[in-house]
Parts: sequence; C-alpha cells; structure tokens
Amino acid sequence: MPLPTTIDAIRALAAALPAGNDEAGAAAAGRQAGLTKPPGSLGRLEALAIFLARWQGRAIPRLERVEVLVFAGSHGIAGRGVSAFPAEVTAQMVANFAAGGAAINQLARAVDAALKVVPLSIDTPTADFTLGPAMDEAAFVAAVRAGMEAVDPRADLVCLGEMGIANTTAAAAVAAALFGGDGESWVGRGTGVDDAGLARKAGTVDAALRLHGAALDDPLEALRRVGGRELAAMFGAALAARLHSIPVLADGFVAGAALAPLCRLSENGLAHILAGHVSAEAGHRRLLDRMKLDPLLDLGMRLGEASGACLAVAILRGALACHAGMATFAEAGVSGG
Amino acid sequence: MPLPTTIDAIRALAAALPAGNDEAGAAAAGRQAGLTKPPGSLGRLEALAIFLARWQGRAIPRLERVEVLVFAGSHGIAGRGVSAFPAEVTAQMVANFAAGGAAINQLARAVDAALKVVPLSIDTPTADFTLGPAMDEAAFVAAVRAGMEAVDPRADLVCLGEMGIANTTAAAAVAAALFGGDGESWVGRGTGVDDAGLARKAGTVDAALRLHGAALDDPLEALRRVGGRELAAMFGAALAARLHSIPVLADGFVAGAALAPLCRLSENGLAHILAGHVSAEAGHRRLLDRMKLDPLLDLGMRLGEASGACLAVAILRGALACHAGMATFAEAGVSGG
Repeated sequence: MPLPTTIDAIRALAAALPAGNDEAGAAAAGRQAGLTKPPGSLGRLEALAIFLARWQGRAIPRLERVEVLVFAGSHGIAGRGVSAFPAEVTAQMVANFAAGGAAINQLARAVDAALKVVPLSIDTPTADFTLGPAMDEAAFVAAVRAGMEAVDPRADLVCLGEMGIANTTAAAAVAAALFGGDGESWVGRGTGVDDAGLARKAGTVDAALRLHGAALDDPLEALRRVGGRELAAMFGAALAARLHSIPVLADGFVAGAALAPLCRLSENGLAHILAGHVSAEAGHRRLLDRMKLDPLLDLGMRLGEASGACLAVAILRGALACHAGMATFAEAGVSGG
Repeated sequence: MPLPTTIDAIRALAAALPAGNDEAGAAAAGRQAGLTKPPGSLGRLEALAIFLARWQGRAIPRLERVEVLVFAGSHGIAGRGVSAFPAEVTAQMVANFAAGGAAINQLARAVDAALKVVPLSIDTPTADFTLGPAMDEAAFVAAVRAGMEAVDPRADLVCLGEMGIANTTAAAAVAAALFGGDGESWVGRGTGVDDAGLARKAGTVDAALRLHGAALDDPLEALRRVGGRELAAMFGAALAARLHSIPVLADGFVAGAALAPLCRLSENGLAHILAGHVSAEAGHRRLLDRMKLDPLLDLGMRLGEASGACLAVAILRGALACHAGMATFAEAGVSGG
C-alpha cells in the first residue's frame, strides 16, 4: 500500500474507498436464515456476522488475528488545566502498557487479541491549538502514516483506541469543527475534571474555533489544526484497515472524533466501522448519532485505551461462534416456523 | 442443602436468604480504587467486580467454573396457537442441544462455560392454564427441586435460561400476575407470531387472569398456576445459587418472569442476580424495570436458551480480568489524579 505524503493524498485515498464484498455478505445472510433459531432471534449478532463477512470478504468470517492498536500522543493544551491528571501521565501509562499493568492489557488478553501500543513523539507535545495549528502538515501526515503502518494487513479485525492527557478536549474541538456547536456542547469530564476544569475545556475549544475559523470546514484540516497525533493515527489506521478489507471496532469519544472525518470525506466512509461502546463522556452519544453508529455496549466506561472496543470483541466472537458453528434446521431435524 | 418438599417450605427458604459478604465487597472496592485508571472510568466493570466479590465472598473473585443451565418444559397452552413453532420443537431443540448444534452450544464454548440442559418431563405438557393450574403442588415442587439440584455448589457463576414452545405466554401471565396489567401489556411476538397470534397470546393471558383471580396474588402460586416447569426450575436454581453464594446471570423475558417471585418473597431476593441482557421481547424492559435490574447487554436478541446471559459472561470476564490483573498506581509509578 503506497503511503500518502501530503494531506491532499490522504484526502484522495479517503475519497475513493473500496466497497464491501456484497457476495460474501449475501452468502452469510443466506447461512443465517437456515440456522436453528427463529429468524432474527439473535438480533444484532446476525447483522454482525454478516458485517464481518462483507468486510472480510468471506461467507464465514474469522477472528483469529484481532489487533488492538493504542496510539499515544501529547498535547500542548495539556498546559491549560483541561485534565484531572498531569501531562506526564501519558508517558507513565505507556510504560504501564509495556509492563502489562493497564486495563487494556487485561482486556486484550481476555478476548485473545494482540495489543500494540504506538507512542507518537510523546516527548514533543503538539502545539497549543488555541494559539495555532496543533500540527504542521508534515507532523500530521507522519501521524496518519504511523497509524496506517500500524495495521497488520493480515489482521481479521482492528480495535482502535488511544492514550493522551488532554485529548478529550482535542476530540471535542474536532467534533465541534465537524458537526457544529460550541465547546460546552461537546466537552465532558474526561478523566474526571471538576466544574472549573470543564469550563476551561469549553473555553479552550471555543478559543480554537474562533482562531481557526473557516479553515476547520475541511475535515482533515480540523484534525490537523485542533486534533492530535493519536487522533490522526487512528484516522490513518481506520483508512488503512478499509484499504486492506479489515473491519474496525472503534473505542470511545476520542476515537470517534478521530474517525469522524471519514464520513465527511466519503459517503460510506464509516461503513467498515463499528462503535464498540458508547462511553460516559458527555459528547459521545451525540457524536455517534451524527456518525450514524449504534454502539454495541453501554457500560458507563470512559477510560479510553481501546478498552470498550476490546471488550466488544467478545460480542463479535459470540456472533461468529453462532454463525460458524450452529446447525441448520435441516441438519438438526428441527421443524421450521 | 435440604430440598423443600412443599410450596410452603420453598416460601420459607426464599424468605430467609443469606446476605452477601460485605467484607469481600469492601475489599474489592478498595482494590478498585488503587488501580491505574481514573476512578470510575471502567464504569459498570468496576461494580461488577465488586458484585462478584460480594456474592462469592472473595476480594478477588474467580470465574473458573461458569455453569449455563438451560431448562426445557412443555406447555398445555401450546395448543392455543400462541407460538410460531409447533410444540414438538421443544424436544427437537433439546436434541439439538445434545448434538451441539444450537446457538447456546456455540456461545457457551465461546465464553468457556459448561452447558447443562435439563429437560423437565417434556413428554408431559403442563395443563392448559386457562382451564386450571398448570401444575399441581407436587409437579411444581418437583420442578423447583430439579432446578435447585441442577446447580453445582462449586460453580463460580450460573447462567439461567430456557427452551419451551409457548413459554413467553406463560412468562407474560406470571408477569401480569406479579406486577399487574393485562395480557396485551405483557405479551410480545416471542419466536415470531403474527398479529393474530399476538392477540391469541393476550387472550390466553387474560383468560388465565380471570380464572385464577386472587390466587395469583401469591407469587409462588402464580408460578405454579400460570408458569411452567422450566420457569419453576429457573426459580429453584436461582434460589439454590443464593444459598450456595453463587451469583447468577439471568437470560431474557422468560427467565426474568421466573425469577421475579424472589423480589416479592424477600426484599433483596434478587440481589445476587444480574440481568445478562434486555431482550427484544416486548415486555422484558418493563419487567426488568419492575425488578430493578439494569441489563448488561442490549443487542436485540430474543432467542432464550440462556443465550443473552451466556454472552454477558464475557463482560464479567473482562471486569474480572481488570480487577485481578491491573497494576496499582503505586506499583506502576503512575501519578494520581
């Protein structure tokens, strides 16, 4: 896969995305119709099996190689008091991932997925986007490419998540840029800011919206100017997954904001993406509504790290186990309805 | 555990249920507070770990032996056109379970749970409860005992589900008896009845409510008169699980109706029970509201067989993996909030 070297090349890739494999999807739907259960009684599990079939191009899809990608980035706006945790926690948590002590280490193991953590220049925070663009074009393209390169072309499914102190404020800014609304309408408590912190988050977003103005109408410019490296990388990973015919499970609010440009750049740009869960972060439900994604889980999680996406792998495994393993009415000698 | 021989003995057991282990629950909560994540950021996963600790009596609970119990029963009311499938499907599906071809076989394997199917006199349907009680006291007590005996005292978690053509009508009758409302307010399309079938279901429930009248005010009498053997068995299994300090995951609408008498017989009779999911069956959400249970999953499933409960085991495994395996802030050298 040729990697883009400019923002325009990224835009061109995102505007010409491959479609799913309708034949494999139809074959999977046909198989579902014959399994020993009332039609539709497995609910979303049936649609999930068909979705996986369509994006993997196999009537009986597989989940042998499930890859969890966690991108980490540092943010200039972390100095603005927008997080309950200090900026150095990003690097400390990357070390915790490497040592196996974080939630995502346990969750990835629980669903038999391979975890890959990709720190993105975390010693060099992006610029404070209330003063200028978070990244110049070179830094943005490099982050998108890092995300694209992180995807193993042999993966059967990719989960996308992140770590980055202050990044829910960046995500809120991206969401506001893409879907309208002010800072207050998109910010939430993140890792647990108090009311004053929440007001600082909204003020930071509003300042960014004023500074960057109409430049944010372009979704990739929005991601470059008010996003962050880990958001750009998740966008790149989702793009690469589509080019490799790999379905994607997106994590929470930050991942959602990172992938949202896809639905602005291409009519069905999010068609290969599932929302693993809806997070407790205030703006996530609304963001998913705008992206027309129906989350698989709703468990009040708001950790990031791909934790909600990773947990949702278990739902896909259940869907696939039924799809691949159940007997048909004819095989089992069960009377149809 | 001495098994009850009368309905009064069952009532006495249900009225004197053991409490959870508060010490283990507090120890688990203390552990959660120190793990490397913002407090509360794992949402319900945190509460689930504490719940399991409290009911297993261990600060770090385990899920080594997860038991899925599927009880099957036959219903006299199946002759009233209340199901989209013929009555013989109950026995055919029991054979399908034995052969490993049903959804629950695949789902149990996917979450590493042991499946036990318990057919309850399926060649002898209960009586048509629009004409008289579904079961006499001996049959009812035998079914409750069968449920109690099915629970392995060494299990770490029990999932409860069922198979029984026509049993969503029985469940609707039990729900109406316990919580008020007429047939129409509790029946749904089950395996997929048409509008005429739905009307027959409502009419069947209304006829039962008229016939049995005030006798249904007693929750165990309701279960005996308008329930079914598999409902009585699920009730018995939930009762035994409580006596053995085993937490329970309940499946859908029929399981919910079967366990509902517990909350009428004892103020915290459902405290050891989680709702694995909310089913697409029309009355289930309302039933869960009445039982004050918040379902873990909402995936439009309506199959029964313990399928939704079994899938939810994966959520508990994720919760427990984090609880048992994560590093503390001190261990990982991560700055607190």
